[in-house]
Amino acid sequence: MKKRIAILGSTGSIGTSALAVVDAHPDRVEVVGLAAGTNVGLFAQQLAQHRPRVIAMATGAAMDELRSMATDLPPHHVGTEGLIAVATHPDVDLVLCASSGTAGLDAVLAAIEAGKAIALANKEVLVMAGGLVMDAARRRHVPILPVDSEHNAIHQCLHGRHPSELRRLILTASGGPFRGRRRETLDAVSAADALKHPTWQMGPKITIDSATLMNKGLEVIEAHWLFGAPAAQISVLVHPQSIVHSIVELRDGSMIAQMGITDMRLPIQYAFSYPDRWDAPVPFLDLTRAGGLEFCEPAWDDFPCLALAYRALEAERSLPVVLNAANEVAVASFLDGRLGFTEIATVIAQTMDAHAPADTDTLNDVRRVDRWAREYSTELVLAVESLKG
Amino acid sequence: MKKRIAILGSTGSIGTSALAVVDAHPDRVEVVGLAAGTNVGLFAQQLAQHRPRVIAMATGAAMDELRSMATDLPPHHVGTEGLIAVATHPDVDLVLCASSGTAGLDAVLAAIEAGKAIALANKEVLVMAGGLVMDAARRRHVPILPVDSEHNAIHQCLHGRHPSELRRLILTASGGPFRGRRRETLDAVSAADALKHPTWQMGPKITIDSATLMNKGLEVIEAHWLFGAPAAQISVLVHPQSIVHSIVELRDGSMIAQMGITDMRLPIQYAFSYPDRWDAPVPFLDLTRAGGLEFCEPAWDDFPCLALAYRALEAERSLPVVLNAANEVAVASFLDGRLGFTEIATVIAQTMDAHAPADTDTLNDVRRVDRWAREYSTELVLAVESLKG
Repeated sequence: MKKRIAILGSTGSIGTSALAVVDAHPDRVEVVGLAAGTNVGLFAQQLAQHRPRVIAMATGAAMDELRSMATDLPPHHVGTEGLIAVATHPDVDLVLCASSGTAGLDAVLAAIEAGKAIALANKEVLVMAGGLVMDAARRRHVPILPVDSEHNAIHQCLHGRHPSELRRLILTASGGPFRGRRRETLDAVSAADALKHPTWQMGPKITIDSATLMNKGLEVIEAHWLFGAPAAQISVLVHPQSIVHSIVELRDGSMIAQMGITDMRLPIQYAFSYPDRWDAPVPFLDLTRAGGLEFCEPAWDDFPCLALAYRALEAERSLPVVLNAANEVAVASFLDGRLGFTEIATVIAQTMDAHAPADTDTLNDVRRVDRWAREYSTELVLAVESLKG
Repeated sequence: MKKRIAILGSTGSIGTSALAVVDAHPDRVEVVGLAAGTNVGLFAQQLAQHRPRVIAMATGAAMDELRSMATDLPPHHVGTEGLIAVATHPDVDLVLCASSGTAGLDAVLAAIEAGKAIALANKEVLVMAGGLVMDAARRRHVPILPVDSEHNAIHQCLHGRHPSELRRLILTASGGPFRGRRRETLDAVSAADALKHPTWQMGPKITIDSATLMNKGLEVIEAHWLFGAPAAQISVLVHPQSIVHSIVELRDGSMIAQMGITDMRLPIQYAFSYPDRWDAPVPFLDLTRAGGLEFCEPAWDDFPCLALAYRALEAERSLPVVLNAANEVAVASFLDGRLGFTEIATVIAQTMDAHAPADTDTLNDVRRVDRWAREYSTELVLAVESLKG
């Protein structure tokens, strides 16, 4: 029987890779629902090719434009309600969540309540509301399959092992385009420089997060929720070749690593096929052409975002929500040319400093903290701008 | 409850490492039986420390010497009968087979029939009689746990995975002390040169086998029997750092690797503790100090023993027995200074060429072929010597 999937964020980097996996295995997987932001042209092509039974776009304007381009649309919805309608469609077995931000969070929780398996590519969902999401998944016996290559690697390495075997999760990091540079040389870095990632092709937000190492910081928090490991049992190791996607260290001194080429189709297909494994959607890795595989400690002082993420995870409660929201505001401001590269970490740190930790036991709690942090960090960005005058 | 073990070959390199593991976990493992060759002095120390309930030595002379040194010996036996008595003692749960040659084979088969779990460090057992041993283990529902670091690594990587996920087993090889040298420069190599292994401390026979790459060839045959993979699904990759102990390639393009420091206590303890895992008997691996991890194809033409092993495995039936016996004769002759380094492969190839393949369905078949190959290769060595004369 085919696995019937919904993709939230089908026109993004992960979404298009996911549809490539579908194309490679038409006998094993079928697209039931698609949701996109505002890229109407690409979305119209995807609808023509995959003929989903339910669709959504982010805005009414985008949907109007789609309606003017395409005839014969299936049931279609808009905004957060639209994401939820796609994610909870009765024919869907598995939801790939690759949309970003808070809207993704509502849809993931709704999909879990509807008993859908979750393939999770939106790490903000767990950073903001890991406790809520994992509790709901446990209660509904729904698997959360990580699509981030690092967590996907750890999922593969842990498979079949008892938690008592575990000593440490080691997330590998490419180090980003500025690996080896000192902090004082990074003030003048432009958005264009930061968007040149050495090993992975990704969207702009995550590419900037890779350059600041905040991406790895968010992944540490994500790993905490996915695998139940405390901050002290999660390490980061810089591995410039991005061949070893992550490592599990076991208590007897043995390490289990997952390796592969750097192509998101690999972890996406793993999440689609799990617990089975399908034939390769990508070329096999040739280790004789990989060059030497190197590992080094992250440069904590030069890339302070990583330590900020550990600080947020150790404080728990609302701090990770603040970290995530302030980071989104700061990165958007950097991409707009309103903030310098090293000022991203400064804005996040100052927002965290100004925050009085609160409980985040409900989605409303999360939303309130998220809103506060966005407002506070936005004001900080304005203050920085006015200082530069 | 403590795991009660017998060690066949307790004074060798694997045996002493195994006793170090016992020393590290006195609350988890207990020595019930010990068998050694002729190293009476060390054996007497081991008996005083571990107080086994049954012991054996290879020869009556060694046992007489032991009796003159130690009072209060437990029940003691000699020769192959002695190995079998230790391996089948009613109090034994698991037998570590680290003795070499045909005597080990009899003891392993007897231990399997007696329902003991087997930790197998003697790869000749599977090379000579893999079909017999694995059939007996299946029939008696006895686990065969590999202690060779490569097969131990693959056992860890395969754990919990369905055979249909598998594409290829990749055994890593250090390349030995002569990695990068051309065959024509290896004629004049001495036994002392060949005994300097770059990464592993081991006995002389296996160290020479590492230098010729025959060790890796025997491991390919061993992997075939342990994991049921055909020759075409077993690859060898040279990895000079010996950090990645082996790799499993899965059908979707993912690779799972096991890594650790190069210390045999790690795989020995895994075999003792399986399916549990105990605290590290060795320092943890620090990947930031490992240097670059490199991988390259083996030099097939410069180290012809590897291809001879593949040829034997592909031919199956009696050829692996011939390969193994001729190799033992040739290596012993090389260590005695009677044969040149590159002549090891020549003697093996000529013995294989002269052999008419036969069935090896019984232990007697195996013994007959083994005897023939030892006699034939011994004559070849004499002929080589007389030519040099």
